[in-house]
Amino acid sequence: MERERLRALLGAVQRGELDPEAALERLAHLPFVDTPHARVDTHRALRQGLPEVVYGTGKTPTQIAEIVRAQREAELPVLVTRVEPETAARVLDAVPGGEHDAAARLLWFGPREVPVVGKGLVLVVSAGTSDLPVAAEAVGAARRFGNRVELLADVGVAGIHRLLASSELLRQARVLIVVAGMEGALPSVVGGMVDKPVIAVPTSVGYGAAFGGLAALLGMLTSCASNVCVVNIDNGFGAAHVATLINRL
Amino acid sequence: MERERLRALLGAVQRGELDPEAALERLAHLPFVDTPHARVDTHRALRQGLPEVVYGTGKTPTQIAEIVRAQREAELPVLVTRVEPETAARVLDAVPGGEHDAAARLLWFGPREVPVVGKGLVLVVSAGTSDLPVAAEAVGAARRFGNRVELLADVGVAGIHRLLASSELLRQARVLIVVAGMEGALPSVVGGMVDKPVIAVPTSVGYGAAFGGLAALLGMLTSCASNVCVVNIDNGFGAAHVATLINRL
Amino acid sequence: MERERLRALLGAVQRGELDPEAALERLAHLPFVDTPHARVDTHRALRQGLPEVVYGTGKTPTQIAEIVRAQREAELPVLVTRVEPETAARVLDAVPGGEHDAAARLLWFGPREVPVVGKGLVLVVSAGTSDLPVAAEAVGAARRFGNRVELLADVGVAGIHRLLASSELLRQARVLIVVAGMEGALPSVVGGMVDKPVIAVPTSVGYGAAFGGLAALLGMLTSCASNVCVVNIDNGFGAAHVATLINRL
Amino acid sequence: MERERLRALLGAVQRGELDPEAALERLAHLPFVDTPHARVDTHRALRQGLPEVVYGTGKTPTQIAEIVRAQREAELPVLVTRVEPETAARVLDAVPGGEHDAAARLLWFGPREVPVVGKGLVLVVSAGTSDLPVAAEAVGAARRFGNRVELLADVGVAGIHRLLASSELLRQARVLIVVAGMEGALPSVVGGMVDKPVIAVPTSVGYGAAFGGLAALLGMLTSCASNVCVVNIDNGFGAAHVATLINRL
Amino acid sequence: MERERLRALLGAVQRGELDPEAALERLAHLPFVDTPHARVDTHRALRQGLPEVVYGTGKTPTQIAEIVRAQREAELPVLVTRVEPETAARVLDAVPGGEHDAAARLLWFGPREVPVVGKGLVLVVSAGTSDLPVAAEAVGAARRFGNRVELLADVGVAGIHRLLASSELLRQARVLIVVAGMEGALPSVVGGMVDKPVIAVPTSVGYGAAFGGLAALLGMLTSCASNVCVVNIDNGFGAAHVATLINRL
Amino acid sequence: MERERLRALLGAVQRGELDPEAALERLAHLPFVDTPHARVDTHRALRQGLPEVVYGTGKTPTQIAEIVRAQREAELPVLVTRVEPETAARVLDAVPGGEHDAAARLLWFGPREVPVVGKGLVLVVSAGTSDLPVAAEAVGAARRFGNRVELLADVGVAGIHRLLASSELLRQARVLIVVAGMEGALPSVVGGMVDKPVIAVPTSVGYGAAFGGLAALLGMLTSCASNVCVVNIDNGFGAAHVATLINRL
Amino acid sequence: MERERLRALLGAVQRGELDPEAALERLAHLPFVDTPHARVDTHRALRQGLPEVVYGTGKTPTQIAEIVRAQREAELPVLVTRVEPETAARVLDAVPGGEHDAAARLLWFGPREVPVVGKGLVLVVSAGTSDLPVAAEAVGAARRFGNRVELLADVGVAGIHRLLASSELLRQARVLIVVAGMEGALPSVVGGMVDKPVIAVPTSVGYGAAFGGLAALLGMLTSCASNVCVVNIDNGFGAAHVATLINRL
Amino acid sequence: MERERLRALLGAVQRGELDPEAALERLAHLPFVDTPHARVDTHRALRQGLPEVVYGTGKTPTQIAEIVRAQREAELPVLVTRVEPETAARVLDAVPGGEHDAAARLLWFGPREVPVVGKGLVLVVSAGTSDLPVAAEAVGAARRFGNRVELLADVGVAGIHRLLASSELLRQARVLIVVAGMEGALPSVVGGMVDKPVIAVPTSVGYGAAFGGLAALLGMLTSCASNVCVVNIDNGFGAAHVATLINRL
Repeated sequence: MERERLRALLGAVQRGELDPEAALERLAHLPFVDTPHARVDTHRALRQGLPEVVYGTGKTPTQIAEIVRAQREAELPVLVTRVEPETAARVLDAVPGGEHDAAARLLWFGPREVPVVGKGLVLVVSAGTSDLPVAAEAVGAARRFGNRVELLADVGVAGIHRLLASSELLRQARVLIVVAGMEGALPSVVGGMVDKPVIAVPTSVGYGAAFGGLAALLGMLTSCASNVCVVNIDNGFGAAHVATLINRL
Repeated sequence: MERERLRALLGAVQRGELDPEAALERLAHLPFVDTPHARVDTHRALRQGLPEVVYGTGKTPTQIAEIVRAQREAELPVLVTRVEPETAARVLDAVPGGEHDAAARLLWFGPREVPVVGKGLVLVVSAGTSDLPVAAEAVGAARRFGNRVELLADVGVAGIHRLLASSELLRQARVLIVVAGMEGALPSVVGGMVDKPVIAVPTSVGYGAAFGGLAALLGMLTSCASNVCVVNIDNGFGAAHVATLINRL
Repeated sequence: MERERLRALLGAVQRGELDPEAALERLAHLPFVDTPHARVDTHRALRQGLPEVVYGTGKTPTQIAEIVRAQREAELPVLVTRVEPETAARVLDAVPGGEHDAAARLLWFGPREVPVVGKGLVLVVSAGTSDLPVAAEAVGAARRFGNRVELLADVGVAGIHRLLASSELLRQARVLIVVAGMEGALPSVVGGMVDKPVIAVPTSVGYGAAFGGLAALLGMLTSCASNVCVVNIDNGFGAAHVATLINRL
Repeated sequence: MERERLRALLGAVQRGELDPEAALERLAHLPFVDTPHARVDTHRALRQGLPEVVYGTGKTPTQIAEIVRAQREAELPVLVTRVEPETAARVLDAVPGGEHDAAARLLWFGPREVPVVGKGLVLVVSAGTSDLPVAAEAVGAARRFGNRVELLADVGVAGIHRLLASSELLRQARVLIVVAGMEGALPSVVGGMVDKPVIAVPTSVGYGAAFGGLAALLGMLTSCASNVCVVNIDNGFGAAHVATLINRL
Repeated sequence: MERERLRALLGAVQRGELDPEAALERLAHLPFVDTPHARVDTHRALRQGLPEVVYGTGKTPTQIAEIVRAQREAELPVLVTRVEPETAARVLDAVPGGEHDAAARLLWFGPREVPVVGKGLVLVVSAGTSDLPVAAEAVGAARRFGNRVELLADVGVAGIHRLLASSELLRQARVLIVVAGMEGALPSVVGGMVDKPVIAVPTSVGYGAAFGGLAALLGMLTSCASNVCVVNIDNGFGAAHVATLINRL
Repeated sequence: MERERLRALLGAVQRGELDPEAALERLAHLPFVDTPHARVDTHRALRQGLPEVVYGTGKTPTQIAEIVRAQREAELPVLVTRVEPETAARVLDAVPGGEHDAAARLLWFGPREVPVVGKGLVLVVSAGTSDLPVAAEAVGAARRFGNRVELLADVGVAGIHRLLASSELLRQARVLIVVAGMEGALPSVVGGMVDKPVIAVPTSVGYGAAFGGLAALLGMLTSCASNVCVVNIDNGFGAAHVATLINRL
Repeated sequence: MERERLRALLGAVQRGELDPEAALERLAHLPFVDTPHARVDTHRALRQGLPEVVYGTGKTPTQIAEIVRAQREAELPVLVTRVEPETAARVLDAVPGGEHDAAARLLWFGPREVPVVGKGLVLVVSAGTSDLPVAAEAVGAARRFGNRVELLADVGVAGIHRLLASSELLRQARVLIVVAGMEGALPSVVGGMVDKPVIAVPTSVGYGAAFGGLAALLGMLTSCASNVCVVNIDNGFGAAHVATLINRL
Repeated sequence: MERERLRALLGAVQRGELDPEAALERLAHLPFVDTPHARVDTHRALRQGLPEVVYGTGKTPTQIAEIVRAQREAELPVLVTRVEPETAARVLDAVPGGEHDAAARLLWFGPREVPVVGKGLVLVVSAGTSDLPVAAEAVGAARRFGNRVELLADVGVAGIHRLLASSELLRQARVLIVVAGMEGALPSVVGGMVDKPVIAVPTSVGYGAAFGGLAALLGMLTSCASNVCVVNIDNGFGAAHVATLINRL
């Protein structure tokens, strides 16, 4: 119990056995005491070597540039998601030195080559060409998060042979991200072919009864393959984050 | 009876008792001519050799027995769908001579072997064991409608090899009915493997985000295989009807 | 033309050139007799003195102008709904002589004052100022359809005294159209104050949980006042049509 | 009682005991004047010769019997809706003299033959046999409300000739109630065949994508026939109420 | 800054200026240190004189009895919600001394008369008789929470005069709970008549397009009266809790 | 004017020109007495010192300016919500003297500093930076309504330490407004930390399964903290109104 | 290339360089044999004489032109769907020789007259003028797929006589595509008039409760005509594909 | 058996009886080679030491017993999910030697203690007591799958201190399963406290706007913590499967 630990610590300080500064440090490591440690905790991602991530939608180029500049002045990498070319250009005017991946809509400020710390291969599999922007977001984020990443694109289930031809690659992956719109069936098929965790990303690709990704989302949640878990519609970044944490285990 | 009225009218014109213009006016006020042709039209199914079909849900055994008896007295076959064992037993008590297929929930009064008039194979493919009642309804109805039918069961997409092992059978079919619950991905995969029309039947199998078959329904409607069309949730009979019409072409 | 065909057939019977039984068979194969009566039926509205109505959404000014011109050449009135000012101006350039009611988004070609043939007062009641365009469509259409119409606006249920102050007017109406968005409660209150039929029109006014008129629609359908019936969201014209038919009884 | 308070107040003014201005102030603070007129208003239905109506769902036989007995003691008719046979039997045990229409689920206490005061024919049209309970509720309620009523049953749109054969009857109606489940298409077709108001009643008949009547409800609201208005799912009574008010105009 | 306060405190302990036990107490009052204070915090309701509340749905009589017994042994009151008569009887067999309010489905163990500590009147207003169980839950819970409570029942908006007749009572309330099913219009009307906070409770009363309370819920959320806030469908208890907190201010 | 009619009627009674019984009958037919009291009621907000509020969406600058000018000529304050900069500029051109809070989208005409009449602190808590416009609307409106207001921003639940660090501030509030999009979890956590009423405001922030605020709305309605009530999506103004009424108690 | 690998392996067995058992093991580890047969399968459409189809939405003119050019260089026909005029013009600038059907939004590169290989008539029936673009897509695609196609337009169910007048044409069709928005009732009526398979296409035409095609979709899925199957909202192309496969049987 | 067919074919090539090109053609027509490798793949779970899992819902005790007996005769473990006590008793009567965990609704046939092969701790965190059955399913399945598992129950977000008090335990986990109903906020808070993958399981606990788990599901999908992925409502087993695969990495 925390109370006893506290009493012992305070007794040690009283008896001169423990220096106040050392006691302070220990307290700083208690989960709920709002010390620099706690604050650093809010930057947990950073301590892990993960870049700070900014969700770009709804932010002006000026706002993005301000956040990026603050990070860069602290010599920290920063990844901005959902950045269209025009916005990227204006941010890069204000804060040079970044690179924009238009397909992935990612704006990156940091080392060109991020050292690989993930233990295995993160494989991003995508169904149709329209799913590529979401798949690219997953690929780009996972790479910036220090993973070895490969993309297996255009292997929708209506042409199952294309997927089967890559079964060797599927089995080499340590964790898989599967991106699909429309009926979202791909994660079920992939999930049945591997014995690794599959992170499914429904996309808003499709029309009519696709209902903006709802069909794919429901399909993935009810997958008959039980090694599949799901993130939000179009959330390539979220899938990359979960995959990164798994790949570092 | 309308036919008699028409005969009388035309006779009167022939005999000169009725002016053609007056006859024209009378005919003009009949919204449609209720002739044998028209009436037979309401029994179109019958003329085609299709049995009369009764939807059993919500009908009492007495009501079903009455309908069946009327058909039997006219020496016509009749198929009752969605009949549970207890109801079937009570109908068969009242009108002997039928047979109940408990798995398919079908109650059949007619020849034990229906002559095959469909030109090719109707193949019913089903995903999981829980989808079997709907698949069985499709199989049973298609057989009673005069088709050669085979059932390929338990080939869900999470074990894609089981499906692929039957690709030869898939290609032999002239028309396919594909039954699946949960994410309903099977029609997309089958649709990609054949060049024949695929009738997809979503089932209400599943829980949670399956939402009573909605996930499978939306998935099938947004299938990336464009040779797939869809009937209502759990509507094995409807799929069999459409397949029968196709198979007679 | 069907009438000619019939006349010829009956003439042949009269002249003894055609046997009545043979004529019977021929008639039996006509699915319905396409006589002037039937054809006039498709122009039923016209015969009743109701103007032809064109739904303007999705039509180009050119398309609208063509339809209008055809009607005008036949000296028939025509009412176009959902016409924004710019479209109206271009149609009026092409076919002069109409008048545009911008608030109601109605474009009218016909007599400036339509004779009143409805037997009583059609009262249009609306909740908020944002519901006015839909209320105005109902008012404008009902007037063009030959009704005496009054508008009681801005009597939302959150200020119930304003509505009660007009209870005398409410009771004078022969049929009421009640237009409301957001929670759509007004028809329930009005329905409880009168013993006349109430036609409720939900509007798409509102945000968030209004879900484009769904909240108002569901509210009106479940009204605790049982003299309320409902038309589609924003369908002021439909309400005017139903009210007109009632008011002519 | 408010009437007495008012009489006393006005008497005091007459006798000069109360200044008109003071009386004005007192009246001003009554939120509304609760006079016999107002109170009778809550019994508006009664004054019109309409029977009191009790919604039976969720009420115990004892509760229903109490309400009925109170009405019968005042020699007033009363109609209870949604009453299953067992409940009806128990109510009739407690309060004899009523009659139960099992098909319509209506329990009626009042004259066996209600005098007809409606001006024309109320025609109830229903699509399938499963829609009959709702149609019967509409028929039964409309009759108790003093209308001449006819039922045209089993004229679903998939057998359009049956409906067309009755077009003469359709045109004789002064107001039509059209009851349909599943896709709910019947009101659109009927609406196109008549120039009278059509009250559409969606039913909860159907399974799967019928979603408990939602499919029929949406279909009727979006009807391409603009003389159609809609009441709640399965609300045969509500349709009868609106039709009655229209038929008395 | 917390770090400075901690450093100062630890320094004081080191210098012998502060006793470790006193330091411990001070730390115990920091929000995040898991001390008795924090634990008491989890019993915040209790400290305020609010009874412990147990949600009864899905719990067996034995489970409820266990929880109740533990509270009673600590001489603490406890309120169990959503308890049907049979369950109540079995709990009361196991733990005598409670009272069951069947209408409100509340089972109460505590003083028969709870002292009133709320500052004003909590008025519960309900629309139809079917809404009474939810209204009764609100009334019963609010009373057990120490409020003076009145119930104004059966004042649905389709009979607006009944509501207006009680406007004086409405104005006397310090906080109002308004309970309604079907279209849920009552809170809008009440909200427009008072200048106090209105807590709206949608109920699952209704059928068809009521969709289990969804119609009422959406209606209340989009209320044109802006002094209305909403709790979950059928959540009479939650409304009572919020009203209690407001009434103690 | 109703008051004059009443005065005349009472005068006639006083003068003996009208019999009290006759006067009684006349009064009985007024549905409610439209006296100054009633009329003032429609301006209830004004009497309370609350400014008139205009919902700006869908109104043209000209329409807004007209309303504002009328209020200003009566020397009354007025608050316009949802006003974008361009509209604000045009209104301010037409009616000088107001101030526009762009972040809150509020346009205010009235005293720069509104006197505080609320009894305690209204604390507005918001989750993410994207929720700030809604939070700002709540802050701005609550201030104009005479409350002391503070904003605690950017304390989303995924960084729970930031929220806990402010627990002292949370406890100082008399009423709390909690604004959150996405999963809308913040009100549950805040609700568990305070014993004051919490008004939750879901925002339309988020994508995919956020469904325009639906996820947050449902989450808040089903909050496990029972001291939470909810207003419409993005309805910062409504939350401020309810909070103001509570804070004046 | 797999075929080469297989040839080499089999050659090694023939030459005695590889043991059959070892060859067996190697083959066993290929998940599927990627032979010409399999590969040609991915071009199945091509082998059947069906043109390659590209879904144009979301693709830039440059991307479309690239795909088209590749096909044209292989002297293969290609059909691009959902192409607006501006895009078409730019693609045709880059790759001359195609023709754009603006009504159908189809861009076609191939023989002007495609030889008819389908065995009978594909009849496309459409309800309203707003449904024409979807119907035109079905007509255009079915023609390019080698079918004899006719279009029966503007036969909505509210004017049932227009449809009945064409019953002869309906009966001539071998397979029917029925396109309708709003309540989507047309397939039910047509389905009842023919004994051929009906492919229903809901369109997104309509407003309010049409919910972007949902009303029509649900209506078609719950059709009381059991010879109806359904494709996605606005999916004229998919209907044409299914009809083509049926028409080649 | 396919292996035999292949062996024969390769033998024929070796013996010169079959030309390699002919063999190539034959192989080309096998869609995939059904070898032991492929077949073992369908029993992948088994090879990994994972027990066979049977979904119990909708299966009779007899059906379950048959499946279990087949596995037991092969000396293989088997886990049946969603088994209520009565069913379990009947299965255990038929196949002794299993054990039923009633809280988790799991029926297990296999070693009493499964050896731990997962590398770290799988921590299952659950919000309310009603969520315990789903949490227990996750705990029970994860244990049978060879993981060290702990359960941290009853730490809902409305009592955030209880969760924070266990932050040390949270950080010890290698992978977390977080189970919550109602608003489903717990995964967001837990996700913010750890740097490990979090698998969120929404439960169907709650009423009204919980919509059978929809509120929790949407909340978890839109979580502001990006290390959260989601499985189907109530799918404790699926979460355990994903966690097991992660924990074996």
